[in-house]
Amino acid sequence: MEKESKKWGFQGKKELKAVAAITVRGVLNMLTANLNKDDSRPIVPLAHGDPSRFPSFRTSLAAEDAVIDALRSANYNCYAPTVGILPARRAIADFLNRDMSYKLSPDDVYLTIGCTQAIEVTLAVLSRPGANILLPRPGFPYYEAYAASKNLEVRHYDLLPDNGWQVDLDSIETLADENTAAMVIINPGNPCGNVFSYQHLEKVAETAKKLGILVIADEAYDNLAFGSTKYVPMRVFGSIVPVLTLGSISKRWIVPGWRLGWLVTTDPNGILRESGIIDSITGFLDISSDPATFIQGAIPQIIENTKEEFFSNIICMLRESAEVCYNKIKEIPCITCPNKPEGSMFVMVKLNISMLEDIKDCVDFCVKLVKEESVMILPGVAVGMKNWLRITFAVELSSLEEGLARVKTFCQRHAKK
Amino acid sequence: MEKESKKWGFQGKKELKAVAAITVRGVLNMLTANLNKDDSRPIVPLAHGDPSRFPSFRTSLAAEDAVIDALRSANYNCYAPTVGILPARRAIADFLNRDMSYKLSPDDVYLTIGCTQAIEVTLAVLSRPGANILLPRPGFPYYEAYAASKNLEVRHYDLLPDNGWQVDLDSIETLADENTAAMVIINPGNPCGNVFSYQHLEKVAETAKKLGILVIADEAYDNLAFGSTKYVPMRVFGSIVPVLTLGSISKRWIVPGWRLGWLVTTDPNGILRESGIIDSITGFLDISSDPATFIQGAIPQIIENTKEEFFSNIICMLRESAEVCYNKIKEIPCITCPNKPEGSMFVMVKLNISMLEDIKDCVDFCVKLVKEESVMILPGVAVGMKNWLRITFAVELSSLEEGLARVKTFCQRHAKK
Repeated sequence: MEKESKKWGFQGKKELKAVAAITVRGVLNMLTANLNKDDSRPIVPLAHGDPSRFPSFRTSLAAEDAVIDALRSANYNCYAPTVGILPARRAIADFLNRDMSYKLSPDDVYLTIGCTQAIEVTLAVLSRPGANILLPRPGFPYYEAYAASKNLEVRHYDLLPDNGWQVDLDSIETLADENTAAMVIINPGNPCGNVFSYQHLEKVAETAKKLGILVIADEAYDNLAFGSTKYVPMRVFGSIVPVLTLGSISKRWIVPGWRLGWLVTTDPNGILRESGIIDSITGFLDISSDPATFIQGAIPQIIENTKEEFFSNIICMLRESAEVCYNKIKEIPCITCPNKPEGSMFVMVKLNISMLEDIKDCVDFCVKLVKEESVMILPGVAVGMKNWLRITFAVELSSLEEGLARVKTFCQRHAKK
Repeated sequence: MEKESKKWGFQGKKELKAVAAITVRGVLNMLTANLNKDDSRPIVPLAHGDPSRFPSFRTSLAAEDAVIDALRSANYNCYAPTVGILPARRAIADFLNRDMSYKLSPDDVYLTIGCTQAIEVTLAVLSRPGANILLPRPGFPYYEAYAASKNLEVRHYDLLPDNGWQVDLDSIETLADENTAAMVIINPGNPCGNVFSYQHLEKVAETAKKLGILVIADEAYDNLAFGSTKYVPMRVFGSIVPVLTLGSISKRWIVPGWRLGWLVTTDPNGILRESGIIDSITGFLDISSDPATFIQGAIPQIIENTKEEFFSNIICMLRESAEVCYNKIKEIPCITCPNKPEGSMFVMVKLNISMLEDIKDCVDFCVKLVKEESVMILPGVAVGMKNWLRITFAVELSSLEEGLARVKTFCQRHAKK
């Protein structure tokens, strides 16, 4: 048998498997494989940002109704245009224009299959030979995985835990060279749960302008801010530096499974068009798959009919659970939380390995935790910071409390005597 | 201004625009730009295979109901697993297993964003340096576009119009070398409208085995066969040669906008697993976006509740319109149809340029046709055969008759005196 198979002239591309292993999905699969099936307690999922399964986080009925109306109209069973259908692009432009002085046009909006495809388009467009891109550390590992698959060089700048997770602007200047195409900024922060101030973002824009690089603003958690810092979209600074905004309805409407996102260009000075970025975006989308057309068709009604109350309710729940998360973590000696989360669905906390007896590192911690306590937490190494942990607080409050209580028990059990 | 823009260190990837121009989408965009806005007659869309906008081709209400039930359950607002949710994979495996002796398992099924993403996954997995792939001419240009974007070398084998569009098996043997990974076969045929016989597919399998290449069976038009040749899925020959089947609900349910497809491995001898193809598929999917989760969730009910009558009705309409298309084309002197279509939604016809006065080639024909008659037809060059045309008959019968009548008038007007 083995001998015979030798004659086949094809083989898989090994890099694809290697690249995938560094994604959140890859790590989640590994953790799931370590679950103890004999533990009758419910699994507490604190490793990824998807609260949609919890009843309190159910999406707005108005959004469901909009999808059903679009489906029943039978007008959206067809293929969609490359860039998305116009009414949806217009609705998203209007939505993002609220309270903004520079107005986006529908032509600035490209619909994508969730924020994931918006990242994919962006990195594909920038991946010419020799180019590099600046990514935050800690960050969202999909960027690294996709850049690797495109042979786009990655350079990491630090987010500073002792400085409210602000961007280390000095390191940006050191890292960038003539081949640097862009820097990525995630705000509200995944994985840190921080929200950048207007002043800090302005400095980021000025730095990018000075270096001649564009800013990719990952605003997947757009408006999920509940602390003292007001959320400001990066495109406010579009006249300083061209901005590509990546967003989606996934987090704000708690529907990551609907796969509807966008890539938005803010380019009042026409720099992106001149540099061929716009042409490359439409070119890439021409050979890519699209979000389901009837979900595109539903977008105007989803946006128009979802009541402000739905959003304020989500913010309120996140604020409360962030508070509980922060306070409960304070009670666990071997874990330190440098900053109370003010946005997104996550917090980054430091694991004090030296206080634990038989835990090697953050992966060992998370694997043993899932085995012994059926609590899933993301090891920091998966987001670029070894011996830290990323914890989501976007779960039902009772689940969060139960999960963190189990973490505490686990830490006590493994504490150095 | 121009001077200032020079300092920006990024630029678009020009290849992406060039690659996109050769897709059906690219050509459709070009044709659409040539429409005469002063023509008050309805546009007759004979250029692409999407009849979903016509009332007679509306999808089954049972399929719509299934999607609505999945959405209202609120169980599918979440992220889906990389490979798709298990109940959907199982339902598709069972669906494809009907009347087959070799049974697929759910693990052989990977859900994709329409057949498009199934093509993308397949070519990405095979695109190691130096590798080449054999594609049919005429064919479906998305393969060429995506292969170009992946630097996968393309070699074309011919489909023979004088031989019922059968594969030129001799040319396959001449083209293949030790770097050939796979051959693509599209059945029922796009763009030719042919259906390959059992005997011919068996020869294809034997040839592929001899050459040590795998067969990629694009069965997007799966079961849309209405002539004298029975449709046989390529995976019937999976014990001769490993087969990757690409399919979707797009054509059979007339819902291309739902973006739900699959990649299926038929590999009774374990050759794909051994060669690392399976690992690469899951690796690629780990860093890709997914079909909307609630559409995945609807799949078991879509399959179970759609009555046989829906399918037989579609087949019946396609048979009738293929017949009308064939007969109406016979009345147009400058167009020859070598084979009456037996499947899919298309027919390839030869344009006899020498009979026309002021028409340079097939592109010129299609551009002038759309300008003068508001009829959209795909120039053959877009599918690899210059001075042929691809016409879809999957439209309302009255539209088809109207469209072909306008083509006839157009040809008469431009005929050599």
